[in-house]
Amino acid sequence: MKSYLDYAALTPIDPEVEKEMKKYNSISYGNPGSMHDAGLAAKDALDSAREKIAKILNCSPNEIIFASGGTESINLAIKGIAFASSGRHIITSKIEHHAVLHTCEYLEKNGFDVTYLNVDKYGLVNPKDVEKAIRDDTILITIMYANNEIGTIEPMEEIGRIAKKHSIPFHTDACQAGLLDLDVKKLNVDLMTLNSSKIYGPKGVGLLYKRKGIVIEPIVHGGGQEFGLRSGTENLPGIVGFAKALELMQKNKSKESKRLIALRDKLIKGLLKIPKAFLNGHPAKRLANNVNVSILDIEGEAVLLHLNEKGICASTGSACTAKSLEPSHVITSLGLPYEAAHGSLRFSLGKYTTGKDIDAVLKYLPEIVKNLRLLSPVRLKKEDMRR
Amino acid sequence: MKSYLDYAALTPIDPEVEKEMKKYNSISYGNPGSMHDAGLAAKDALDSAREKIAKILNCSPNEIIFASGGTESINLAIKGIAFASSGRHIITSKIEHHAVLHTCEYLEKNGFDVTYLNVDKYGLVNPKDVEKAIRDDTILITIMYANNEIGTIEPMEEIGRIAKKHSIPFHTDACQAGLLDLDVKKLNVDLMTLNSSKIYGPKGVGLLYKRKGIVIEPIVHGGGQEFGLRSGTENLPGIVGFAKALELMQKNKSKESKRLIALRDKLIKGLLKIPKAFLNGHPAKRLANNVNVSILDIEGEAVLLHLNEKGICASTGSACTAKSLEPSHVITSLGLPYEAAHGSLRFSLGKYTTGKDIDAVLKYLPEIVKNLRLLSPVRLKKEDMRR
Repeated sequence: MKSYLDYAALTPIDPEVEKEMKKYNSISYGNPGSMHDAGLAAKDALDSAREKIAKILNCSPNEIIFASGGTESINLAIKGIAFASSGRHIITSKIEHHAVLHTCEYLEKNGFDVTYLNVDKYGLVNPKDVEKAIRDDTILITIMYANNEIGTIEPMEEIGRIAKKHSIPFHTDACQAGLLDLDVKKLNVDLMTLNSSKIYGPKGVGLLYKRKGIVIEPIVHGGGQEFGLRSGTENLPGIVGFAKALELMQKNKSKESKRLIALRDKLIKGLLKIPKAFLNGHPAKRLANNVNVSILDIEGEAVLLHLNEKGICASTGSACTAKSLEPSHVITSLGLPYEAAHGSLRFSLGKYTTGKDIDAVLKYLPEIVKNLRLLSPVRLKKEDMRR
Repeated sequence: MKSYLDYAALTPIDPEVEKEMKKYNSISYGNPGSMHDAGLAAKDALDSAREKIAKILNCSPNEIIFASGGTESINLAIKGIAFASSGRHIITSKIEHHAVLHTCEYLEKNGFDVTYLNVDKYGLVNPKDVEKAIRDDTILITIMYANNEIGTIEPMEEIGRIAKKHSIPFHTDACQAGLLDLDVKKLNVDLMTLNSSKIYGPKGVGLLYKRKGIVIEPIVHGGGQEFGLRSGTENLPGIVGFAKALELMQKNKSKESKRLIALRDKLIKGLLKIPKAFLNGHPAKRLANNVNVSILDIEGEAVLLHLNEKGICASTGSACTAKSLEPSHVITSLGLPYEAAHGSLRFSLGKYTTGKDIDAVLKYLPEIVKNLRLLSPVRLKKEDMRR
């Protein structure tokens, strides 16, 4: 039996979502742009999905722009604001996803100026730092809702209040925040990115919430779909599935969060019994499904391979960079030494995770660590010196 | 019973494709970037889909970049070349899809210069015109393989030879060309866009073939997927389904083309019996599934509504602009009068089209036209003048 503990990288689709999507693949649903019954049926289904999501986000349906996933939506938010504004300064944090960081780096090459804020040892952005970084030409603040590697939940409302006070658009990458409150008015955000493939919805769908009045430039031009801001025939089955997945996730969020927190805390407690292991991220301001530990004197990648042999799927950090041997930029931003970043492990829990999965990790991991430490380069080096 | 004759706008998914996709939604297939069995299984499936498509296109797997559809892929090709080149001139035609035209217009606003070539009365681009338009600073030629409204197939190989001779990258929008030869070497193309949702594959998936050595800039930045050229977690079920759909379409292409051509020609013959009706597009260099006629003294939109009442789904042109009252830019580019553009109708056939669908059109359309002409503004004007 497999223990899949990598839900932050990808969630399997919910069978209810899959069932809901099925009929929208049929010939009864055409191109939502077409002027016949099949087109109108598609248009109605699209409108209805948009309305369902708008209700959850507490916004208007025409403030939702569907896109192909979190990464595209983040690009649309950041480049969209950048290319529509006369100012040149953007504020973000050092622990954002690469979709944010690489987009900002691209803009830096194109004449923009980006402030990458430090975070504290738990990965928290200090709202005061955000305010201090604001300049006359600041056009955007983009800070993630919750970190994908260490699970730290950022102070959205406070940052939002500061952005509002200074009239600067505030975008948040909420791709990992499916179980959190997504009310854009409470969060004080002007732009928010959500991703279907992280909430048991279909792959290849995401959305950008854009508050009315916020002006962005499209990054994909064409037939003028999505209010002229994201062209291309709408992925109707994907969008309908995304709406269903978001509804399901938000409906069960308090019960499911409690269940996951119990499993999470059991896993954390067990892992911290391993010598020289410590928790990354905030102990309380933390996603219900995220566990991230650093274990000294070992390589995270080696642990992963051994866990995999035991049927346990985990990760060292973001899947987008899993194959790179660079240590995680998130862990190094916490002020931890290089070795800690190399020994980091992420277990992300989800709706099919049970106590058995946690038990499996706690059964095998201490032994794996022990064995690897016997072979660790640090230890070998000492042995070498003795020869 | 419905007669869906709008396959150029959207194809329903093939049940075999749907079946193939199903398992890739399960927990056994993770994020292709992840370093565990679920991730590796996903990576293998992704590689295998890429290899299958490469075989059909006669290219290397690493020359295929998956994206979210035809529109994004076209944007990536055109902006990708534009932002990676020092030259500022692009050659295209007046009858391209809006994904090409609006992308070119965006580039014009950003300092690029675009030549929009005229076409002849059949919608054919003259390769000599392409050659004449070439300048020292020309960085891209982008001409569609086959037109989405009038079905005219452009002289790819000749244009490709000219592009090659002058060492200018040549991109083609092949979204409507699923039944044509897609061998990129025969076609002499450097870049080619394909769309899954036009070939009975899943919605929200497309690809850009990019010949090795052609340099483009990404338009979406992030985790560096798709060889660093299109970031975002890969839509694995979508990509697997796209590969399957392309295989099925290309496997049956000669038999299916013959079948469709017989139906198409029957429909054309019948439609041309309507007084003051004529064919748009080339009579022979034409997609097997495309019928486009102009019927004078009526409005195409009015005909559509009446056809829809009889259960027939057709269109006036591109679905992307179906709701606009502007006459089609394709039809007006053929040198036809405004009235002809307003009376244009497209019937696009597909794998579930039978003789019964054609019979239904030929049964109802002449009567609808007759009735509408009695109410036509042209006629009414004459009546008014008599009073």
